[in-house]
Amino acid sequence: MSDQPVGYKLTERQRLDWLRLSRTEGVGPRTFRTLINRYGGASEALEALPTLLTRNGRIGRVTTLAEAEDEMATGARYGVRFVAMGEPDYPRYLRMIDSAPPVLCIRGVSPVFERPGVAIVGSRNASASGLKMAEHLAEGLGRQHCVVISGLARGIDARAHRGSLQTGTVAVLAGGQDRLYPAEHAELLDAILETGAVVSEMPMGWEARGRDFPRRNRIISGLSIGVIVVEAAMRSGSLITARFAAEQGRDVFAVPGSPLDPRSEGTNDLIREGATLIGSVEHVMAALAPVLGRDDWPPQAQESHLDQGEEPLWDELELDERGFEDAPTTLALRPKRNPVALGGDDDGTYADTNELTPKELLTQLLGPSPVSINDLVRLTGRSVSLVQTVLLELELEGLIERHGGGLISIMPLEGTLVLNSAP
Amino acid sequence: MSDQPVGYKLTERQRLDWLRLSRTEGVGPRTFRTLINRYGGASEALEALPTLLTRNGRIGRVTTLAEAEDEMATGARYGVRFVAMGEPDYPRYLRMIDSAPPVLCIRGVSPVFERPGVAIVGSRNASASGLKMAEHLAEGLGRQHCVVISGLARGIDARAHRGSLQTGTVAVLAGGQDRLYPAEHAELLDAILETGAVVSEMPMGWEARGRDFPRRNRIISGLSIGVIVVEAAMRSGSLITARFAAEQGRDVFAVPGSPLDPRSEGTNDLIREGATLIGSVEHVMAALAPVLGRDDWPPQAQESHLDQGEEPLWDELELDERGFEDAPTTLALRPKRNPVALGGDDDGTYADTNELTPKELLTQLLGPSPVSINDLVRLTGRSVSLVQTVLLELELEGLIERHGGGLISIMPLEGTLVLNSAP
Repeated sequence: MSDQPVGYKLTERQRLDWLRLSRTEGVGPRTFRTLINRYGGASEALEALPTLLTRNGRIGRVTTLAEAEDEMATGARYGVRFVAMGEPDYPRYLRMIDSAPPVLCIRGVSPVFERPGVAIVGSRNASASGLKMAEHLAEGLGRQHCVVISGLARGIDARAHRGSLQTGTVAVLAGGQDRLYPAEHAELLDAILETGAVVSEMPMGWEARGRDFPRRNRIISGLSIGVIVVEAAMRSGSLITARFAAEQGRDVFAVPGSPLDPRSEGTNDLIREGATLIGSVEHVMAALAPVLGRDDWPPQAQESHLDQGEEPLWDELELDERGFEDAPTTLALRPKRNPVALGGDDDGTYADTNELTPKELLTQLLGPSPVSINDLVRLTGRSVSLVQTVLLELELEGLIERHGGGLISIMPLEGTLVLNSAP
Repeated sequence: MSDQPVGYKLTERQRLDWLRLSRTEGVGPRTFRTLINRYGGASEALEALPTLLTRNGRIGRVTTLAEAEDEMATGARYGVRFVAMGEPDYPRYLRMIDSAPPVLCIRGVSPVFERPGVAIVGSRNASASGLKMAEHLAEGLGRQHCVVISGLARGIDARAHRGSLQTGTVAVLAGGQDRLYPAEHAELLDAILETGAVVSEMPMGWEARGRDFPRRNRIISGLSIGVIVVEAAMRSGSLITARFAAEQGRDVFAVPGSPLDPRSEGTNDLIREGATLIGSVEHVMAALAPVLGRDDWPPQAQESHLDQGEEPLWDELELDERGFEDAPTTLALRPKRNPVALGGDDDGTYADTNELTPKELLTQLLGPSPVSINDLVRLTGRSVSLVQTVLLELELEGLIERHGGGLISIMPLEGTLVLNSAP
């Protein structure tokens, strides 16, 4: 999607189709991209979806045109613009991340996204010095023409927004644009809108729930060239934002504190893991200097191993086409019928595979232990796009399971696995 | 000196000679080593000194045997042992540093030096949490069979000693063993002596003055495999200890703090410069694990660039034989008479130098801009030891000046430099 020209603006009908597709249950950012790539457009993907879904109950019904129109009408009343990835108004840093939202709901002043964003995040129950630090950094970054990005939470987030109200700040919501959390920040939100922006990828009317917050955090880091964690306990959401930032190739900064204060455990740990210790805006700007003004920045994101061993952030097919590099090279093969003849060379390449359809071959190669698409491509000798397409079919049939790092395994079923070899 | 067998014990007469030589004005650790290396022993060096000094007023008179006997008698009343470098009782980590004291005055329990030392240093006006941290780390390191090294100062130092009284701690004094500073720590010093030790390189009766403290700090780090700085303002003595530690190849640890607290500026800066952020004994032990139990540790120290641009810590000839690597490669040559014929190759080597004595040649090569001994060796084509010996003669004649980093220049004199070509 990031190949789409920056200046390309959707028609209203295309925008509605993008919204419909992105709002369809089971279609997250990666599935969206896969479908668009496969069918050439949102409209075509929407047409194909019902036939793709007949064999599989895992994906809910497709969002209707009327529902999408309703959401856009509701949004309009709140001053929300629905901006598709690749459109000129879509924030340029966010577009580079692996899981960029297909459609972003934006309120406020769009040009704010043309300036470099720096996120300031931290504890809700911050210390006085943490709050002071957040405000001080936000003010200073504003003076340096940066836009402060944060999550509108109590504590550090709110203070970071307040410190940069004059120069411009962006709040990223975990719920819909009409569902403010926490409610006490209504006035702060209004102030933010005057010079900055409020964004969300969630539908109008959506109440934020548990996993929406870490999911939201990838947008906070994605909008930023660097993320500053001011105070953070162990296992706090701010550390998730920091991890996203690192995986997205963004700088991670942490404000240290006394090891005797649990609110500094997370930031001190980040520093031990390689984050840059900062105590002033000068420290931040010195670290960002090589990045600011570079055309080839931000780098293409690598979020591949993000979900490994964790609850996924989306109910989606996880049809990601990237992240194969990180996959293990060991393979657990489980030939089931018509054992495949190995080629003459010793590298394990299956050379003589003409008697099987690609789908049969892939099904045969897959086992309960996750393997990488890279390895499947190598072992089948077929093209990446063919393997991807077959895997999409297998997935829509509920026969395979996606794991983090681009790994795939056979879906564990009770009893013997019976393959459905129909098209 | 570190080649001397660890088990070699001096006779009482040798010990007196070592003390006499080391107490002679103008003889610091490096001059001491040069003289011993040149003359084969302290007794021989003492014999040679008066003839070496006749032409030069820069070195004071040689300490007499009676004076050395007096000092040892005074020391004995305080329970002080005078341990020469290379003797079995000499702390093994300290022996490895470039500027190890030739004679160390030790009171207390000698076996304490057989366990790994970890220094804990920091501000005199420490915060409550800094003091708590120091005590906590000292207790924990003691439980890990480490000996806590510090400087008996108020604040962090004293708290570190107190936290490790049960397991053993070593205080390093900047003055003589009979001149306690601060005086209020007399009781603490007595407690330290019961399970640990108190050391000093200064003569009995010596009142510590300004530069004695940084000079002392190299012994604190030299006795340690790692140095922890708990709280330190910018430009504080603890940072000097940390720098010594880094130059001696020892680990440097720093406890972070809020950037809003000036007492943490120094430690946060150390972390930014590469020191390991620590918040617990576990952090320290994890970092030290690869070092503990290694026979080839500690590494030979590299203090070569320590004094660059600063007041030297000793009034000595600075006859160091190391540190040539760091010298600049540019040369300011000032041929004065009989221009030296350059060799055929283009690397600037003076090949045809037979018509000049080594001393004349070196004098000719030296100018007002400092050059390295390395370059002098290369340009003369003579051995390092010959160049060193001639430079020692030139220095004792007051004709050359030593700079940091092993650099040497002609001593600036009024009017024209008249060479004394006598032997």
